[in-house]
Amino acid sequence: MPEPIRALQSAVIREVGLRDGLQSIQTVLSTERKKEWIRDAYAAGQREIEVGSFVPARLLPQLADTGELVAYARTLPGLFVSVLVPNLRGAESALASGADLMLVPLSASHAHSLANLRKTPDEVVAEVARMRAARDAAGSKMLIEGGIGTAFGCTLQGRVEPAEVLRCMQALLDAGADRVSMADTVGHGGPGQVQSLFEQARRIAGERFWCGHFHDTRGLALANVHAALQTGVTRFDATLAGIGGCPHAPGASGNASTEDLAFMLDTMDIDTGLDIEALLRLRAKVAAWLDGESLHGALWRAGLPRSVTADAATAAA
Amino acid sequence: MPEPIRALQSAVIREVGLRDGLQSIQTVLSTERKKEWIRDAYAAGQREIEVGSFVPARLLPQLADTGELVAYARTLPGLFVSVLVPNLRGAESALASGADLMLVPLSASHAHSLANLRKTPDEVVAEVARMRAARDAAGSKMLIEGGIGTAFGCTLQGRVEPAEVLRCMQALLDAGADRVSMADTVGHGGPGQVQSLFEQARRIAGERFWCGHFHDTRGLALANVHAALQTGVTRFDATLAGIGGCPHAPGASGNASTEDLAFMLDTMDIDTGLDIEALLRLRAKVAAWLDGESLHGALWRAGLPRSVTADAATAAA
Repeated sequence: MPEPIRALQSAVIREVGLRDGLQSIQTVLSTERKKEWIRDAYAAGQREIEVGSFVPARLLPQLADTGELVAYARTLPGLFVSVLVPNLRGAESALASGADLMLVPLSASHAHSLANLRKTPDEVVAEVARMRAARDAAGSKMLIEGGIGTAFGCTLQGRVEPAEVLRCMQALLDAGADRVSMADTVGHGGPGQVQSLFEQARRIAGERFWCGHFHDTRGLALANVHAALQTGVTRFDATLAGIGGCPHAPGASGNASTEDLAFMLDTMDIDTGLDIEALLRLRAKVAAWLDGESLHGALWRAGLPRSVTADAATAAA
Repeated sequence: MPEPIRALQSAVIREVGLRDGLQSIQTVLSTERKKEWIRDAYAAGQREIEVGSFVPARLLPQLADTGELVAYARTLPGLFVSVLVPNLRGAESALASGADLMLVPLSASHAHSLANLRKTPDEVVAEVARMRAARDAAGSKMLIEGGIGTAFGCTLQGRVEPAEVLRCMQALLDAGADRVSMADTVGHGGPGQVQSLFEQARRIAGERFWCGHFHDTRGLALANVHAALQTGVTRFDATLAGIGGCPHAPGASGNASTEDLAFMLDTMDIDTGLDIEALLRLRAKVAAWLDGESLHGALWRAGLPRSVTADAATAAA
């Protein structure tokens, strides 16, 4: 049975702005600014950060400094460092980098998988088996997460069958993935679909199904997080200022915004360890760096409500 | 016991853009355009519309045509026409107009009540008793709804105690309100708070507690609707393009957006009777009328996902 939502004590927001955000926008941030972002996010309480991708620099030159960022992030005590890897070669770089987790994207939409990864979903599963063998041969403890994209629909293919999503998830686990997660890559899903699919995923994978990744393309990212929380999932990807999310739809809303999600969880008395005021200061800094890009989220404009800041003042007194 | 969410078959989005939206922005729409809005909203399937307020024209000149709008809206078969009234004088105008429901705002925050309505909450309750007497004396069947604002916090006062909100609700019912509802007037509330308070409200008022009104000031409006749905509440206020909501915070996100909420409910297979494509066309028209105003929502940019339109095409075939 899924854990009832009111028993949830804490949740983790995994910051993916440096990867899913920066890969989708025009501006290229310098390595120094990325380090400053990581440092400030850490200071604001973030303890899981996806710092980049090990993909060929000719494809994503803006993420070519991923190795250096992993090395920097590892100097921050207790920071859990993730990277995205598309294939075995990327996994080898990730293993060499010393990151804590590598996320392997698999697209449950056959059409999207071929267009985006040039592999079928089952070919990705086979690659994960090779990554797992390489990880074990290296004696590494790095976790392998299979991240199932287009889990709620696909721009190319339209509908994606939940049964196919769950089949891919089981195949990833069978191939040796330590963790699995699901992404609503193009913002097709709603909270009823999220709750239904996540409940089934948790029933199959238990705690190994550990993260939800929601895009706010149609405004439902936080409602979807709320639905996912009902199933006991307590880890969510998000990006500061909601950057990224939909490179092919200029101006479209991006990822769930870190700061809005942190506020929502705070209103639910779910501990994230985050200092929201510090996040808002970091957001202002990153927004200045990304001048001209589409930024999202609502909290930055309104600020924390007085009822919350008054509570905080009381708690601090 | 609250009805489990999966049993919900249908929900109502009450359009309040012509009142809560237009009262909060600079642009004054002509009566002809308002009628066109009402006509198109009706054609898109909307069956509950709050067309304006019976308040002195010197306070809200942009809503001075409310009587004419009620008369027009009554010509549309099956349209349930609401108006806001702040006091007995407004209620008398509402009774004369022939609207189906008058909504009386009460602010659970004492400070906000005094600042905004120049009455204490209990003075508003006493006024509702007088409205009820006037309604009954007129032999009218018009419903009286007590709408409890600042139910989740207040910009002036900070925290608002749930017990005080529930006390006000009971007092409104005792004074003769036929329906009660709650509003997160300034976007302080999160889904856990909504679920908890709405569950208590339903336990006390049953089906007479019938509507939630959420502002998207901090991005949580749709997550809050999702939480409210868990308690069996199936009627929500929203505004096309999310207009309005926070007149004192320029640029702040406004109300829950009608079109995004319609999409969310559609993903949940909860029937609203709405033609979302028609709503998006109306949104484009109203956006042109309100050029320069802060508009909100995400769906209009991305459009309906292909998985939904493909389903619709299949269903129509």
